[in-house]
Amino acid sequence: MANLKDVHGYVDSHADDFIQRLSEAVAIPSVSTDPSRRGDVHRMALWLENQLKRYGVQTRAVPLGQQEVEGKILEYPPAILGRIGDDSKKKTILIYGHFDVQPAEKSDGWDTEPFELHVDRESGKMFGRGSTDDKGPVLGWLNVLEAHHALRIELPVNLRFCFEGLEEDGSQGLDDLIVTETSKGPQGWFHGVDCVCISDNYWLNTRTPCLTYGLRGIAYYQIIVSGPGSDLHSGMGGAVYEPMTTLISLMGKLVSVEGRILIPGVYDGISVADSSELQKYQDLDYSVADLEKVAGGPISLSDDKATVLMGRTREPSLSLHGIEGAYSGAGGKTVIPATVSGKFSLRLVPPQTPDDITKKVVSFIEDEFAKLKTKLKMKVEFVGGGKPWVADTNHWSYEAAKRATETVWGKTPNYTREGGSIPVTLTFADNLGVNVLLLPMGRADDGAHSTNEKLDISNFLNGTKLLGTYLYEVANINSDK
Amino acid sequence: MANLKDVHGYVDSHADDFIQRLSEAVAIPSVSTDPSRRGDVHRMALWLENQLKRYGVQTRAVPLGQQEVEGKILEYPPAILGRIGDDSKKKTILIYGHFDVQPAEKSDGWDTEPFELHVDRESGKMFGRGSTDDKGPVLGWLNVLEAHHALRIELPVNLRFCFEGLEEDGSQGLDDLIVTETSKGPQGWFHGVDCVCISDNYWLNTRTPCLTYGLRGIAYYQIIVSGPGSDLHSGMGGAVYEPMTTLISLMGKLVSVEGRILIPGVYDGISVADSSELQKYQDLDYSVADLEKVAGGPISLSDDKATVLMGRTREPSLSLHGIEGAYSGAGGKTVIPATVSGKFSLRLVPPQTPDDITKKVVSFIEDEFAKLKTKLKMKVEFVGGGKPWVADTNHWSYEAAKRATETVWGKTPNYTREGGSIPVTLTFADNLGVNVLLLPMGRADDGAHSTNEKLDISNFLNGTKLLGTYLYEVANINSDK
Repeated sequence: MANLKDVHGYVDSHADDFIQRLSEAVAIPSVSTDPSRRGDVHRMALWLENQLKRYGVQTRAVPLGQQEVEGKILEYPPAILGRIGDDSKKKTILIYGHFDVQPAEKSDGWDTEPFELHVDRESGKMFGRGSTDDKGPVLGWLNVLEAHHALRIELPVNLRFCFEGLEEDGSQGLDDLIVTETSKGPQGWFHGVDCVCISDNYWLNTRTPCLTYGLRGIAYYQIIVSGPGSDLHSGMGGAVYEPMTTLISLMGKLVSVEGRILIPGVYDGISVADSSELQKYQDLDYSVADLEKVAGGPISLSDDKATVLMGRTREPSLSLHGIEGAYSGAGGKTVIPATVSGKFSLRLVPPQTPDDITKKVVSFIEDEFAKLKTKLKMKVEFVGGGKPWVADTNHWSYEAAKRATETVWGKTPNYTREGGSIPVTLTFADNLGVNVLLLPMGRADDGAHSTNEKLDISNFLNGTKLLGTYLYEVANINSDK
Repeated sequence: MANLKDVHGYVDSHADDFIQRLSEAVAIPSVSTDPSRRGDVHRMALWLENQLKRYGVQTRAVPLGQQEVEGKILEYPPAILGRIGDDSKKKTILIYGHFDVQPAEKSDGWDTEPFELHVDRESGKMFGRGSTDDKGPVLGWLNVLEAHHALRIELPVNLRFCFEGLEEDGSQGLDDLIVTETSKGPQGWFHGVDCVCISDNYWLNTRTPCLTYGLRGIAYYQIIVSGPGSDLHSGMGGAVYEPMTTLISLMGKLVSVEGRILIPGVYDGISVADSSELQKYQDLDYSVADLEKVAGGPISLSDDKATVLMGRTREPSLSLHGIEGAYSGAGGKTVIPATVSGKFSLRLVPPQTPDDITKKVVSFIEDEFAKLKTKLKMKVEFVGGGKPWVADTNHWSYEAAKRATETVWGKTPNYTREGGSIPVTLTFADNLGVNVLLLPMGRADDGAHSTNEKLDISNFLNGTKLLGTYLYEVANINSDK
């Protein structure tokens, strides 16, 4: 892999240029959830498309439709598709990333301007909104392309790109785009893709790179209890059935304080970890202290790291989020709320699906409500959800990523599952029918959606090398292709 | 009571003038909770003081201090004290009322302008903010004064007045004023008062006048559960103790869905109604349908009207009001809230006091929390409260009010207790050590704090006669004075 050595050399000698380009990207405040920033998201799409074109990537900006905000029609930012290389002897990798960011204001508690990349050479950290989520990783791919283009080295694989500008706003339109392109068969943009690589999550800690092979699904519900015609004064208390009392009673039956879900059948079919899987969790470079640092308090459900990690990623969980319609202000208000809606969600693991879990959730709550024999009305609503995802880590794409990690970072990666969801992962896996790999660039303490979001310079540069090396390992590995 | 006949005649012949004066009063938007309306509350105080002076009442506007609102100092509206008559052979009655009102905007859903009295002769109703709460009743006393003044008839009793402009804003400063005046002994404004009469509540229904002899007290609490350093993403679920789960569990232990309070010792010392008291509840002109009309739904805890009425007024109750710090918006948010504060309050009846109940509430919740054995933190806070009040209905003031009601309305009044609280009632009772009577003017459907607040013309005019007649009955009755 003589070419790869040159690519690494290019990264080392162009570090400042790469950081400069990240500054440019961070300076475009492409906040997708803020309609007043919509123009910036479109500007960011154009900026990215031009960058890709510069390195010989064939691009296509795909409109994703419109939305109405306060009576005004707003165009969604387009998805930027790209392709480079069409050699049938090479593997074809689809890269996903997003160029929109979470909102940020200096007044939120940032130490520096969020949309000006602040490069702190002393600590080796670069602060700015989008630095790690997800502009850093997207620009990692641009760095790899630039190195090959400048060095006139042919890429070892064919690449396809799918970059979107609505990830932080529910990935509007993207599922449809993937389904549509897949349905076109050989004419579809994603035809011939052998695997998908997504760099949009984080290490389990601040020390060890990881490969992520699982995400939990989600099923979100609300229990709506009603009865009075309008909010009542609590002077009426003792004369009427109160919706809050019934709602709190029902919410209290869903999960124990130790996190055990109390809905019958919810754990059906979930495998028990055997000793070799348990050992994998024990072997991870991770500790209960790492978890409690992220949680901000000594509140771990267990003192055993494997139990904690499996509880967070391999087991389902149920969280109570809050109540709509009740009093939620400071101080006191003597109200009997008329209609209250209790919100909760389950994080799902295979073989759980939102459909199956919804049947069990609704039936359990309806039974428990009937037992209460109140004169109130109750309904359970499924708000939304997505299936869990687990990939085969024996696949050549994971093997290639493992080797690349060992080469670049000198460490065997942690193999991790995450407690949250990235819905597009499952859309790619289901529609394209190929292996999906999550290959993160940043660390656990990057603060993706928080104030002072950062990316370590080492993670940006080694991350760029990692992405490049992964392509070479993919090309070299023995596989059915 | 030849004089009284003349007074009634004056009321009948001056109905239009009285309604015109009510229009004037309603037209002053004396909203005490809105700082931008503070000038109007002061204007209303002056208007009322001038009215009293016109009929020979000696007045005093007592400053109640200042408040700071957004860095600006605002003067509280003064209390207007008044006195007329000083005949030691006559009884002395203290009248309380308030001249401030709840906020109102036409856009809230009013059919007419809230601060323009809309007199609908067809339905016999007068719509406007303050019509029934409490400008109508206050003007009832002005009408009585005017009749005597115009007819040159001496009042049958000595009167003292205490009108405030902050009732809807927590009666700031009024308790202090009452305590101060009481502590002055014979020099105090309220010295020599034989009983208190307050017209600031409502009939139990729309058909039968009532005398109100009891109010429940209140004790308001919040349970604060914390643990995480900041709100967490629910992808962390299954790894950490979640404050919401513990809070909901604790809130679920406080009261049954049928309204039975589950805190040990809370019912200690509360008397059981004997058959004669039960009979009084059965005899009231009231039905479960009346309750459900006010509640806006068929949600009565019992089909027996005595049980329902006692549950609302003679028994304590516990209502869950809501949760601060949890998600309270529409739709879904996958948050594990870091610190949540569950709000609830008890309505109290004798011999319960906030102090005694607080000990029981705190001890119970702390015990239950300890049993849960979580790693979270929890504390219970007493937010505020007030004692319950029950008056002796065998007192001559009640007997006089009963006779007056029978004379004016041709009906024996309902004797009622209310589920809510009017704190000043207890302050008068405790400090002056005299009987307090609540003698309402309006009906159950007046909508005191709602849109389209109204007072029936018949209630305004008969209510004026009732207040006047009450004074004559007080003067005539055999008593220790």
